[in-house]
Amino acid sequence: MRSVRPEPTRLRRLRDRLHEDRLDGLLVSNLSNIRYLTGFTGSSAMLLVEPGLATLVTDFRYETQAGEEVEPSIRVAIAADGLVDALAARIEEEAPGRRIGFEPASLTVRDHLEIGERCDTVIWDPAPPAVEALRACKDPGEVERIEEAVRIAERALVELLDVVREGMTEREIAAELEYRLRGAGSGPLPFDPIVAAGPRSALPHARPGDNRVEAGDVLLLDFGASSGGYVSDLTRVFVLGAPATWQREMHAAVRDACECGVAAVRAAALVRDVDAAARDHLAGRGLADRFGHSTGHGIGLDVHEAPRIHARGDHALRAGNVVTIEPGVYVPGRGGIRIEQDVVVETDGCRVLTTASTDLIEL
Amino acid sequence: MRSVRPEPTRLRRLRDRLHEDRLDGLLVSNLSNIRYLTGFTGSSAMLLVEPGLATLVTDFRYETQAGEEVEPSIRVAIAADGLVDALAARIEEEAPGRRIGFEPASLTVRDHLEIGERCDTVIWDPAPPAVEALRACKDPGEVERIEEAVRIAERALVELLDVVREGMTEREIAAELEYRLRGAGSGPLPFDPIVAAGPRSALPHARPGDNRVEAGDVLLLDFGASSGGYVSDLTRVFVLGAPATWQREMHAAVRDACECGVAAVRAAALVRDVDAAARDHLAGRGLADRFGHSTGHGIGLDVHEAPRIHARGDHALRAGNVVTIEPGVYVPGRGGIRIEQDVVVETDGCRVLTTASTDLIEL
Repeated sequence: MRSVRPEPTRLRRLRDRLHEDRLDGLLVSNLSNIRYLTGFTGSSAMLLVEPGLATLVTDFRYETQAGEEVEPSIRVAIAADGLVDALAARIEEEAPGRRIGFEPASLTVRDHLEIGERCDTVIWDPAPPAVEALRACKDPGEVERIEEAVRIAERALVELLDVVREGMTEREIAAELEYRLRGAGSGPLPFDPIVAAGPRSALPHARPGDNRVEAGDVLLLDFGASSGGYVSDLTRVFVLGAPATWQREMHAAVRDACECGVAAVRAAALVRDVDAAARDHLAGRGLADRFGHSTGHGIGLDVHEAPRIHARGDHALRAGNVVTIEPGVYVPGRGGIRIEQDVVVETDGCRVLTTASTDLIEL
Repeated sequence: MRSVRPEPTRLRRLRDRLHEDRLDGLLVSNLSNIRYLTGFTGSSAMLLVEPGLATLVTDFRYETQAGEEVEPSIRVAIAADGLVDALAARIEEEAPGRRIGFEPASLTVRDHLEIGERCDTVIWDPAPPAVEALRACKDPGEVERIEEAVRIAERALVELLDVVREGMTEREIAAELEYRLRGAGSGPLPFDPIVAAGPRSALPHARPGDNRVEAGDVLLLDFGASSGGYVSDLTRVFVLGAPATWQREMHAAVRDACECGVAAVRAAALVRDVDAAARDHLAGRGLADRFGHSTGHGIGLDVHEAPRIHARGDHALRAGNVVTIEPGVYVPGRGGIRIEQDVVVETDGCRVLTTASTDLIEL
């Protein structure tokens, strides 16, 4: 995969934020945050951001890769005895009494205890999710990558539908889908595709199994691709043969709910209002209790990131957020329908990135 | 995938261990540990193990799945407002002053703070890795699953080698490999395959890129499959065309080092001695500083688990451990060779599960 050299402005904006939060530094342990700030894509790293300096610590396996990916202004240290140990050595060089933030949602208690013991003159503060807040608003280059990830996923879907046949197992369909995602140019898949047939489509997070797609089954596909680290996430539903009345009705309700949700997306809209736009439509059809999850979530370097779109969220959407809108209806023992769109929030509305038909397509 | 119904003895053995550690319970946050103890395979759960009771908390998405996978003696609770919240409600029912362990290597500071606030009459203690210790010694059913994961990976490799051609990109080869792994029956892949050609094989954790395999290149494949949740992990090297002398010599050194490592594996052997057996062989060829990582690691539900085999480990192997032995030599700018075997530790030696040739095969 092409490495993504991040804008140096990201570190500068983070430092401004730290200054406002009265922090002398931030220990970044979330790997997607590290990638966002430094370009480093390895699976083992910690980053210390200070006013005049940023230090990335990784291990031997990633020495060459870090040299290639990380911008030259960031110091790279290779840990001999664990990341925290190497970082602690770095921190001890500095004056005592500093207040350094950490990320409570990703730092483990073990690492927290170790760094607290090793650097006991530092005041360690759980920090607000500052990097996540920066990441939530995408710049045009990031939106482009997400769009590319959508296009890859949709190309793979078109190719997949050519080979899906009655009698294939969910697992076989998943393998064909993954192959086509890779063939269409995806980087590492953001998650294992959900391929659920018949009554199993009523499980919102079903794993592909050995049961076969039969005539009359709903086939639900929830999958995504990645491009330069940025992901797409879409859900479409199909029927093998002519749909039954209940399938057509459930599909129409979900599609309309999805459109209501999308129509409510704009900068400054409260996420609970976007959630309600989709949810109320289903409630009007008597399906409120069949829709048990939230309406959507941000996508970017992670497949689930800020902003979350749920019923009690009182935060506002901002221009540049990229979110999914994905209402679903699930009837245990019978089947489920979910439709998921990816949209970019704009000042006066949104732009839908996903272009694949949301019809209930007969296969 | 077939769900794995764990032996009820696992929970009993864990409780014996907690009793020895003077703990009244254990909060299990590591998802592989939860799977091992309960059979639950979802991606969102916490488990509270107490003397007479075990409570699994998950969210709405996994309600049906938890009902199918978790053995009936374990109570399942569906969280409405976060896992910690639901668990805290459960704990408050009990008498105060209890000492409950948690897993410091997986519990985040955020969840630790929240549960500490919500359940402030409990004494929360970082616990030793009790479940990891149980998991390290596999029962025959677990070894069978790992063997099946090895067989799947090796079947996929045979099929892959039929299609690898000069001029293919690493990414294309990775896509073909993943497709064949799935086709051969693998569950979710334990990690994204490493496919590294030419000088990029010198990066121990290279990601497949757009560069093409050319005549004379080393092609390094490090990949695995899963079966019933248990994984395999193997590395083989190939050359496109006739190998150069340096490639033959480096390969012979690594293969001999791997055989030395495997020969040192037996119950009661110290892991540092197993590491030394492989490392000393390379040192004898002047390659000590080209082998920068440790010699191996346990495999099971995770691709990296106990026991780790490294130069300073003074713990002993035990019968039933399943470990990799994977020395490698890396010359920046030129290429790398690594050979990785999966072995089961036995009383008087070990049984090698991987059967694919370790020759430097010409493609």
